[in-house]
Amino acid sequence: MRSLSTSSADGVQRLLFSVGEVPGVLWTPLGATGVRPLILIGHGGGQDKTAPAVSHRARRFVADLGAAVVSVDVPGHGDRPVHPEFNALATADQARIDAGEDLITLLAAFQARVAEQTVPEWRAVLDAVQALDHVDAGPVGYWGVSLGCGLGVPFVAAEPRVRAAVLGLGSALVNAADAARITVPVEFLVQWHDERVPREQSLALYDAFGSEEKSLHANPGLHADRLPEHELDSAVRFFARHL
Amino acid sequence: MRSLSTSSADGVQRLLFSVGEVPGVLWTPLGATGVRPLILIGHGGGQDKTAPAVSHRARRFVADLGAAVVSVDVPGHGDRPVHPEFNALATADQARIDAGEDLITLLAAFQARVAEQTVPEWRAVLDAVQALDHVDAGPVGYWGVSLGCGLGVPFVAAEPRVRAAVLGLGSALVNAADAARITVPVEFLVQWHDERVPREQSLALYDAFGSEEKSLHANPGLHADRLPEHELDSAVRFFARHL
Repeated sequence: MRSLSTSSADGVQRLLFSVGEVPGVLWTPLGATGVRPLILIGHGGGQDKTAPAVSHRARRFVADLGAAVVSVDVPGHGDRPVHPEFNALATADQARIDAGEDLITLLAAFQARVAEQTVPEWRAVLDAVQALDHVDAGPVGYWGVSLGCGLGVPFVAAEPRVRAAVLGLGSALVNAADAARITVPVEFLVQWHDERVPREQSLALYDAFGSEEKSLHANPGLHADRLPEHELDSAVRFFARHL
Repeated sequence: MRSLSTSSADGVQRLLFSVGEVPGVLWTPLGATGVRPLILIGHGGGQDKTAPAVSHRARRFVADLGAAVVSVDVPGHGDRPVHPEFNALATADQARIDAGEDLITLLAAFQARVAEQTVPEWRAVLDAVQALDHVDAGPVGYWGVSLGCGLGVPFVAAEPRVRAAVLGLGSALVNAADAARITVPVEFLVQWHDERVPREQSLALYDAFGSEEKSLHANPGLHADRLPEHELDSAVRFFARHL
């Protein structure tokens, strides 16, 4: 793990780092001593590790839970170079969608391919961050919706350190098989008027989770509409219960 | 309002009372001075105003919100005599269900008939309880699932004092028209494996609420399975935000 720069504001320290080729950011309470649970936030498509929506959640988790929060750029996003293979695939998929092929089917194949790279990358980032003095080597939480759900479900299914996950805005057509392997508590967010993920596919993904404790939280709104702040309050309490 | 008896335990005072022919119970913080918001809990079918599930919620709302909580017996339940008309109707409906008629259709008509009586009864109870020194004459919250939703939706639709409602385990076939008239924030509970209310009818009732702020919370379980305690935590915070 290579430290690149640090800054701090409002009692939160922000460390930019890299692990191999993966750029990341770690938020911790300023002057933190002793260990604290770690939460990984997976960003949405077109966003990156320091997008406002990611930073806002990270700062809430630090302030309210005393947690350490990490986020990394997905290939082709943020500070990462264009990924030739994924870029070519995305361009080809766009042409197929324009020609009338089904977006969700192509997206499922695309995200599965990307997850083959991101799952090991994110696991390596956990290894590196959990080796720090002020981060607990134990339970990890995961928060991610949309692309953060598409890549998050295979990650949570593969990574036994993750003990609780907030996921959402995802489709059974993309993630049902991996979701069935997840048994940790899940809070699953649905935007009731999601124009990208058909409602029945969203409900089917909730249905697919193998977890005994799983709650679906639906609220009015389109796919990219801001999630209600009370859902972030709920996520804070969800992680407080399980980490 | 006629006071019948008082008792107290764990910092909560319980007053049994009647308003006309309606027996009720009021929970308040022991030694309460100053006004506090009021929450009405509607009990489920076959339960009554002091059923363990009702008392448990009432005591949480008193302890965590400092609220006053009131619950009354629905006609034919608890300390109320058999209601000849409703009893005859229920017996006739059971025979029709046994003969193959649709339960939900009959239940919808039955609950609409009962609500014609309970809506004015509950409004009179609010009048009486809000006249007490230690109860705020302003905003009221409502909590009710199953029968407490079937009767609660027409009540919330009719009563402008209600500013926030937790409802659930209900069906659009019973309550859609009244739900469309509700505009206050709603938290709507769904048991994902509800064997009495078809899932699509449950989702359709959530869809029907006219409220700008409405959240659907689904959890695994059958109709009468115990709701997760974290849903009661959520209801506490929901009322804290809106009352």
